[in-house]
Amino acid sequence: MKIIKEKELYSFCYECLLKYNMSEEDSKTVSMCLVKTDKWGINTHGTKNLYGYINKNIAGGVSFKDRPVIEKEYTSMALIDANNTLGYIPATMAMNIACDKAEKSGIAIAVVKNSCHYGAGALYANIASDRGMIGIAISNVDKKMTIPGARGMVIGHNPFSLSAPANILPSIFLDASSSNVSSLKVLTAKAKGTEIPNNWICDKDGMPTNDPSKYPDEGALLPMGNHKGYGIALFIDILTGVIASSLNSISNDIPSWCFDIEVPNKVSHTFIAINPNLLCENFKERIDELIESIHSFPKASNVEKIYVPGEMEWNKYMATENGKTINLPDDVFDELEKLSRLAGVDLKVL
Amino acid sequence: MKIIKEKELYSFCYECLLKYNMSEEDSKTVSMCLVKTDKWGINTHGTKNLYGYINKNIAGGVSFKDRPVIEKEYTSMALIDANNTLGYIPATMAMNIACDKAEKSGIAIAVVKNSCHYGAGALYANIASDRGMIGIAISNVDKKMTIPGARGMVIGHNPFSLSAPANILPSIFLDASSSNVSSLKVLTAKAKGTEIPNNWICDKDGMPTNDPSKYPDEGALLPMGNHKGYGIALFIDILTGVIASSLNSISNDIPSWCFDIEVPNKVSHTFIAINPNLLCENFKERIDELIESIHSFPKASNVEKIYVPGEMEWNKYMATENGKTINLPDDVFDELEKLSRLAGVDLKVL
Repeated sequence: MKIIKEKELYSFCYECLLKYNMSEEDSKTVSMCLVKTDKWGINTHGTKNLYGYINKNIAGGVSFKDRPVIEKEYTSMALIDANNTLGYIPATMAMNIACDKAEKSGIAIAVVKNSCHYGAGALYANIASDRGMIGIAISNVDKKMTIPGARGMVIGHNPFSLSAPANILPSIFLDASSSNVSSLKVLTAKAKGTEIPNNWICDKDGMPTNDPSKYPDEGALLPMGNHKGYGIALFIDILTGVIASSLNSISNDIPSWCFDIEVPNKVSHTFIAINPNLLCENFKERIDELIESIHSFPKASNVEKIYVPGEMEWNKYMATENGKTINLPDDVFDELEKLSRLAGVDLKVL
Repeated sequence: MKIIKEKELYSFCYECLLKYNMSEEDSKTVSMCLVKTDKWGINTHGTKNLYGYINKNIAGGVSFKDRPVIEKEYTSMALIDANNTLGYIPATMAMNIACDKAEKSGIAIAVVKNSCHYGAGALYANIASDRGMIGIAISNVDKKMTIPGARGMVIGHNPFSLSAPANILPSIFLDASSSNVSSLKVLTAKAKGTEIPNNWICDKDGMPTNDPSKYPDEGALLPMGNHKGYGIALFIDILTGVIASSLNSISNDIPSWCFDIEVPNKVSHTFIAINPNLLCENFKERIDELIESIHSFPKASNVEKIYVPGEMEWNKYMATENGKTINLPDDVFDELEKLSRLAGVDLKVL
């Protein structure tokens, strides 16, 4: 574990992106997103990935120069061609467009095609809640999951995020994939050689297994709640790639952003903003009441506190505010150090 | 198992509702919804419940005379007060309003408050797909589920449904609750005295248990994927009761429609329609391709066919078309017979 000042971490990301000819504005957007994700403690999706993004840019798989453009626009809908830019940029743009439109109309949707990895969907769901609205962010991703009746990796464990604004917390937010668990959890068990519950992965025959060594070479992640997670992942494909008329419309066709670095990732994302303030005069206060009622539910044995979704992340975030520092797990620091050497930008940890 | 002609089943429901002074138009809507649900084979949510609805009406818990009214309306949003009518009526109205608005604007949302049980959400999601759009229907329901860290029933296993139109099938649709399994599955295991997997319910201390006898007196359903199902259920509360400014805004406060028959159910529903045709010229054909690609995925051992969500239900539905008959499981038939005696309307099974 290493410790770094927030400002230092931000500047490091920003300087690295500038070195690879990303514009100041886009470098700022991406760096802010990555640092925010680390502040939430979602370290798998934060600054750790910047080395991979820059390598992908060097390999020609993602553009740091192009700009996303609005291709179609209606009262409550927009289609944005990301032009193979890094997902953070078109995603931030798209959710803001959805919010602009939803402010008056009540709800709006912005679909992004030809994009690349956008990190944690919570970033964009929280753009809406920062603006007093409810936000939904979904994306298709490369296949890691099976579906009932199939064998092998056939569909993405497509993630979804929702956020609603509050006063006593910045937001309630959920950021989840449609599989039962993440690949990382399986790979960690594999490294330790421990048995896993039989709803995490299937083996080469499509049968549930307790043996994590089957993943990723033979098996695949299992969807949460079987047909339910399958349905969620599939409707995310429909609401992203299919609706966008993307060439690689479904997650079955999408290359990995981090393993297939020479080729465009071609993911699609969709953002929905809903304006509750048109229906409800005191929405944030009602969310506060909801949070308080959840905190006061009867607790299970040995439980100190019941959390609302996103509360643990905001607690970590708050602990880094006001000039405090960010903790970087070793795997994150290792990636940043590699990037520091590659880009020739100093990384100043404490 | 009893067998009945579709027309007979429909007429029976319609005549019963008329007897209790529901209007012809509303009786038609409710009867069509109930029969359609049975045709899909979703018998827990079909005509089986009509006896309960009519008893609730007799007890004063649901109105068969009032009408839902639009309370607020914007370009892509509406709020409907159901006035304690049976959910099928305001829900059908609301999804059609959402579709009307989404046709031009791209997406629309209609929120219904002060409602009563609406049956299978798939009914309304499919209104949108019948109109060439993508439909989403969600509802809060009375509490049957716990959440991570809590004990006892603290939140509804709030259901969600999505539907997208196709050519080779009428639609792809998902209809699911946010718990791992339904109460019915637990109660069936309890009746048989069989052990259950430990992710179905928790015991009185909030701990997972294999013993179905703990439900419903001591335990509660567990959310699918733990924090994920919790988050989904909670955001359904936010997007229904909280956004509607409903008095019983969250599922923790909602009475059971079928056990607390003298009081209004006070559930809220929300409907979203998305018009893919503004972005995508051949949307249905693209969904057909998606279905075909899923059918051709490599199959798990001993699997004959991989189904898309809703396909099994459409297969059952199709088998009842063209004057064919509907199979009524014994528990459904028993309820219909009780209703036949109560209402004095003949039930003509084959």
